Amino acid sequence: MQISELAETTGVPLPTVKFYLREGLLPKGTPVSATRSEYGNGHQDRIRLITALTAIPGLPIARMREILGVVDNWDDYGVVDAMGAAVAALPPYADHPPPAGTDLEFPLAREAIAALGLSYDPAYPATQQLDAAIRALTQAGLDWSPTVAARYRSALAPLAAEELAPISGMDDQQAVGYAVLGTALYEPIILAIRRLLHRDVAERTALSPPDPATGNTA
Amino acid sequence: MQISELAETTGVPLPTVKFYLREGLLPKGTPVSATRSEYGNGHQDRIRLITALTAIPGLPIARMREILGVVDNWDDYGVVDAMGAAVAALPPYADHPPPAGTDLEFPLAREAIAALGLSYDPAYPATQQLDAAIRALTQAGLDWSPTVAARYRSALAPLAAEELAPISGMDDQQAVGYAVLGTALYEPIILAIRRLLHRDVAERTALSPPDPATGNTA
Repeated sequence: MQISELAETTGVPLPTVKFYLREGLLPKGTPVSATRSEYGNGHQDRIRLITALTAIPGLPIARMREILGVVDNWDDYGVVDAMGAAVAALPPYADHPPPAGTDLEFPLAREAIAALGLSYDPAYPATQQLDAAIRALTQAGLDWSPTVAARYRSALAPLAAEELAPISGMDDQQAVGYAVLGTALYEPIILAIRRLLHRDVAERTALSPPDPATGNTA
Repeated sequence: MQISELAETTGVPLPTVKFYLREGLLPKGTPVSATRSEYGNGHQDRIRLITALTAIPGLPIARMREILGVVDNWDDYGVVDAMGAAVAALPPYADHPPPAGTDLEFPLAREAIAALGLSYDPAYPATQQLDAAIRALTQAGLDWSPTVAARYRSALAPLAAEELAPISGMDDQQAVGYAVLGTALYEPIILAIRRLLHRDVAERTALSPPDPATGNTA
């Protein structure tokens, strides 16, 4: 199909399709004349994936290119490592990423990951994220201990397993794309629902007796 | 005590204490001469709270001032509403906040909140956050339904109750500060542990058989 049909069938405006081409997010078509190229179903699928990725808040174009590179070359990694590499390109990004080749060591995360019964990999970005999060918590005087860690594991382990269940019905390349989108796009859902639940808990436990004048708890 | 002792006892550098005073985060001391003021235990507690709040990624000074205003005036709100107002000042912030006085309507969040058995309040920021998150999910073609919503509720409801449990032993002003810090500082913990669990699930379910040449799953 021509580029105009590619735009129409995917519902993406033509200038946006051209932008994806220029940015190297979408592979060039097959030239059929000096001014025309031919595009196929693979281009439609890629545009759908790019469109889905644009829904991720805070994802720069350069990182999107990195994710698409992993999706394209997943069989160089193996599917599990490809999912890891693609998820690693998602925000949040460390303020001070260690220089390449540094021996990374995250002692707070190491201890927590041991308590959680998971395997410690300092090169996996979530390890550094956990380390920074624990440091901020404890600096603020909030509780962090193997007991607290276990509370988060109990809540999140069944969820993580259910979230990944659809992958068993996908081919490997789809699985990598799904892992990235699912990781990024259910995160804000989790945070919003948790805040709504906190409010509900606070209201239901009625921390103080209601004020008869206003009906508010005070 | 003098300002220098306030800095020493809290472990915060004197220029930082002066910055907190200038920014109106820390109330002025009681003047005892033209050049000296006297500070008390309340100032120490406030500096500890400010230090804890500085651990929250992406919290601007103006929002910190807003949170401290709610902590100071919690009894104008009642403790539950004060906790809600303080948490509402945390990131993430809407890209396009509706003008004040607008009738807010978030149909996706309204439907989800009904499915979750929670009460719908369009003025509570987590409602708008949930609405935007559901829109991004569905635009990207990911699954969202009452069944999926229930999965997140089952995982998060017991967690939310446990997270708020310590509040019953606090006075109301402490409770407001704790709600803000706990909401913000356990969020990155949740996201990092979820990503580590995903990787663990992917590895354990061994999506494809291992490649005998490399030992990697491929």
